[in-house]
Amino acid sequence: MSNLEIKVYRDLMGENEKWAVKTRQLLAENNCVMFNLIGGPGCGKTTLLEKMAGWLEKNLHFAVLEGDIETTRDAERLAALKIPVSQLLTGGACHLEAKMVHYALADFDLEKLDIVIVENVGNLVCPAEFDIGEKAKIAVLSVTEGEEKPLKYPLLFREAAALVLTKTDLLPHLNFNNEACLENVRRINANLPIFPVSAAQETGLTEFIAWLIKQPTELK
Amino acid sequence: MSNLEIKVYRDLMGENEKWAVKTRQLLAENNCVMFNLIGGPGCGKTTLLEKMAGWLEKNLHFAVLEGDIETTRDAERLAALKIPVSQLLTGGACHLEAKMVHYALADFDLEKLDIVIVENVGNLVCPAEFDIGEKAKIAVLSVTEGEEKPLKYPLLFREAAALVLTKTDLLPHLNFNNEACLENVRRINANLPIFPVSAAQETGLTEFIAWLIKQPTELK
Repeated sequence: MSNLEIKVYRDLMGENEKWAVKTRQLLAENNCVMFNLIGGPGCGKTTLLEKMAGWLEKNLHFAVLEGDIETTRDAERLAALKIPVSQLLTGGACHLEAKMVHYALADFDLEKLDIVIVENVGNLVCPAEFDIGEKAKIAVLSVTEGEEKPLKYPLLFREAAALVLTKTDLLPHLNFNNEACLENVRRINANLPIFPVSAAQETGLTEFIAWLIKQPTELK
Repeated sequence: MSNLEIKVYRDLMGENEKWAVKTRQLLAENNCVMFNLIGGPGCGKTTLLEKMAGWLEKNLHFAVLEGDIETTRDAERLAALKIPVSQLLTGGACHLEAKMVHYALADFDLEKLDIVIVENVGNLVCPAEFDIGEKAKIAVLSVTEGEEKPLKYPLLFREAAALVLTKTDLLPHLNFNNEACLENVRRINANLPIFPVSAAQETGLTEFIAWLIKQPTELK
């Protein structure tokens, strides 16, 4: 049984990788870069995008691809702010795969975009295993989740090119050990840039956006 | 491709169900009941167990099975409080399966236990799909995650026999719409008992524990 499981898993990933490569080619042809935003349920991914929109608009053309299991609520929140957004429903699946994303990108006029941000399904585990053709994975962790999460869910923190630490406005009300959190992140990924952010108080956003904006330039 | 995926999934679940049935028999023979605690990363499952331990001890014999991807941190936290605990590491997998749980139960003297509580991997999606032989799934959602989660991750809330709503002490600092949350839960599972709890302030615990303690009696 376990042999069968491993074999199928590898087949699936091979198929996934083919689509990720296709997507990367498609994006490169259009001079567009895609980021894969990954974090647990309710860590603040959509709110982060809402608050970033105004800043991003001033600097570049972007669109968001919303990944959800059910409901179009997150896409509706972004559409209400006039953010170009498309919704991908997985119908039960716990992560996005490269093929779904490839087809969903057909909704966008990629030639006119600099950046596509994909908000993956709220899950700290499975989405980290799937390359969807992104330039980089961005981990999102809220301080309410606790400082030990990088050790308990190491794959995402190892794969990520940046970490956004959200809900820092709640720190005065939590037993969150900031130093231990940074140390835990460093143990998994020594050079990971960390951006503490409070979307509620709109602090830390510009630093993260400055980092984000620099990425396409490197590629182009 | 999609046909292959579905076929394998069904095979896996068939195999899983066989082990869940075996576990249910094993538990019944020993007059013991198992609960499957499921919630996202950092929603407060381990802290809930830490705070419940003292109350549970007065009423019955219990043990905890900790499910994690990596690290034994949660089990160590419980062991420090002299809670009988065993650790199950999935080695990357995002949920517990019945076979792992069945073998892990061998660590306990089930004849001497009334309740086993399994803390599943921190994930609001995948664990809800797997019957591990439990009497009931218990959903754990923290108010910091937002009131729309029952709609966005409906399977867990549909499958659960109770919902523990944690971190209620943070409500004064959040934009959490309590009524909308209850309404969202009701839309998915009309009669789901909901227990608001603050582990930090130790409120609401006795109501949830009273519910939990009643469950074995029904079975025996």
